[in-house]
Amino acid sequence: MMGRRLCGERFVATYLIEGPADEAAAWASKIAVEQSVELPTQLIEDAWIREEIIGRVEGIASVAPALHQARISFASELAGGELTQLLNVLFGNTSLKPNVRLVDFELPPVLAGTFRGPRFGLPGLRDRLGVHDRPFLVTAIKPMGLPPEALAELAAQFARGGIDIVKDDHGLADQPFCRFSDRVVAVARAVEQVNREAGTACVYAPNVTAAPLVAHKRARLAKSAGAGALLLSPGLAGWDTLRMLADDDDLALPIICHPAFLAIRGAYSHRVLYGRLPRLAGADATIFPSYGGRFAFTAEECRDLCAGALEPMAGLRSCVPLPAGGITLERLPGQLAFYGADTGLLIGGDLLFHGDVASTCRRCRDLIAPV
Amino acid sequence: MMGRRLCGERFVATYLIEGPADEAAAWASKIAVEQSVELPTQLIEDAWIREEIIGRVEGIASVAPALHQARISFASELAGGELTQLLNVLFGNTSLKPNVRLVDFELPPVLAGTFRGPRFGLPGLRDRLGVHDRPFLVTAIKPMGLPPEALAELAAQFARGGIDIVKDDHGLADQPFCRFSDRVVAVARAVEQVNREAGTACVYAPNVTAAPLVAHKRARLAKSAGAGALLLSPGLAGWDTLRMLADDDDLALPIICHPAFLAIRGAYSHRVLYGRLPRLAGADATIFPSYGGRFAFTAEECRDLCAGALEPMAGLRSCVPLPAGGITLERLPGQLAFYGADTGLLIGGDLLFHGDVASTCRRCRDLIAPV
Repeated sequence: MMGRRLCGERFVATYLIEGPADEAAAWASKIAVEQSVELPTQLIEDAWIREEIIGRVEGIASVAPALHQARISFASELAGGELTQLLNVLFGNTSLKPNVRLVDFELPPVLAGTFRGPRFGLPGLRDRLGVHDRPFLVTAIKPMGLPPEALAELAAQFARGGIDIVKDDHGLADQPFCRFSDRVVAVARAVEQVNREAGTACVYAPNVTAAPLVAHKRARLAKSAGAGALLLSPGLAGWDTLRMLADDDDLALPIICHPAFLAIRGAYSHRVLYGRLPRLAGADATIFPSYGGRFAFTAEECRDLCAGALEPMAGLRSCVPLPAGGITLERLPGQLAFYGADTGLLIGGDLLFHGDVASTCRRCRDLIAPV
Repeated sequence: MMGRRLCGERFVATYLIEGPADEAAAWASKIAVEQSVELPTQLIEDAWIREEIIGRVEGIASVAPALHQARISFASELAGGELTQLLNVLFGNTSLKPNVRLVDFELPPVLAGTFRGPRFGLPGLRDRLGVHDRPFLVTAIKPMGLPPEALAELAAQFARGGIDIVKDDHGLADQPFCRFSDRVVAVARAVEQVNREAGTACVYAPNVTAAPLVAHKRARLAKSAGAGALLLSPGLAGWDTLRMLADDDDLALPIICHPAFLAIRGAYSHRVLYGRLPRLAGADATIFPSYGGRFAFTAEECRDLCAGALEPMAGLRSCVPLPAGGITLERLPGQLAFYGADTGLLIGGDLLFHGDVASTCRRCRDLIAPV
């Protein structure tokens, strides 16, 4: 049968397995079966299925006394060229088991080539925003409940202060007290006016998180209103909704991934959930709660996340890490030292705590200026 | 301003918070702020926002020495009539915190009315399948790697044996060795032929999990090929992709939710993640790993899940629980005793372990026949 000829390429998933050492090998085999044929192997008579379709345990290594790392490979054809099915083979059923974590995956060239990934990545975003030697400075308009004009005025102050990207708070959707279209038109116009008058180059990223077709409609509306980027939460809207927007050549806007509803809780490495997956789905930047803020991510987890977003990944462009979640002016120099220039620092509420907003933004720009 | 008049209805989220008793109240307030304005409250001057937009802590109760339950309500308007934004307010950012679990939520009438929910529910599925006094008997065609004709032959044996619903294994997508359209046409035809010749009423549920528009296209193809239900994994395809199929009046097929990629890990109650959410998005049935099989769900968690799927929920139809994940013939009577008749028992590999498949299916039918 024609369909039985495989290309020979395989993708590799790496799992951390909690449990006694003498069970590690059995667990690895169980994962290889669960993620492919999902059937006791003694029931499979077809030699081709046994050899080519069942996952292969490529190696097991001890990480700690009761923690083992297993590398399992699968024929590229199992993913059927689809993001949903790739994720399914990587972690579909096994995600339901309490003691297995998906810590990394590697895609071979042909399979990786079916994903466009980020359209801009770090260099593209630097070109687009004209920011070359420092981190991007990012903030959000909020709180939910303000009318479009008040949000537009706030965005104008941010733009005047030299913020590079002003995004919607991820809770701004299409509520009756602040309609999407009213807000996006008002804010985009206000930012554009500052850019024109003050010579700034601020970009507005409205939140288009919604059902797939609604998100797409809002993204087109945002573009026509003058928005320079888009914000989407794939945990709410789905990974392929992110991908639909990222891959649309008529939109061709940078996409920022927000982590809302993407609970991690030991099921994934930070590298995978907030780095590799947004990048695979086409996000040009990925927001996450930085260490030391009001969330519980550790510095080590943030470093791991940045690796997934920035380190080489099967030819895909990079995805700019956007640490957030309680970054203050006071903490800005430390964050810069930790993340370096290839990032975007997202300061929220603290920009409103120090009097004149535009002046506070300028202080932030000074704090991250290259020396 | 017109938009500032709220309807007065509120939805309520219930969280379990781990931590010392003297921090429970502070944590509840933090959640109420994080899930609404996401800004320190001292920065909010607008009295209307402070009173109407910020979440309200309705009550805190101690569950255990270091475990507290908090009920927090939000104005219905915050959800903006959208599933994505409702989920965002319920758990968007807070899902990223390690010590908070979303254990339940309640929707008031107007907000609930924006969701159609399951089109059939338990009574509709009973009518459609002609099964009134016992659990549905469900199985899957697999393994991945078999060609369409072999899967069709297997489905025919299941149908002959009296299986009510034959679903695709959730790993059957559109792989080169078994194309979606080839498989669905072959299997639907085989099942239909058995129904015609043997007088059975088996329904085939192909897996349409894919990117939103592809899933929709496959669902239409499945219907035109004669499939009587659909299988979708919203953890992979997105909750609104499930909803798009469920709400399509031209499709009007029962939808079965598969839990692939829906890691729970203490972030949600089983009631919410595998019961209420699939139901809210329109699933008529929800597959989950039953207690005592090869997954780690406990009997108590399965009971909680069934409550979310079956108990009254703001006027939405019920969602039939489909326990799976290692149910054997031997375990069938115990599962029936535990779940009762209002369920579907999903037996996978064990149907292939006892010689003639159709005979084994008939034994299962006997085991669950009403006494």
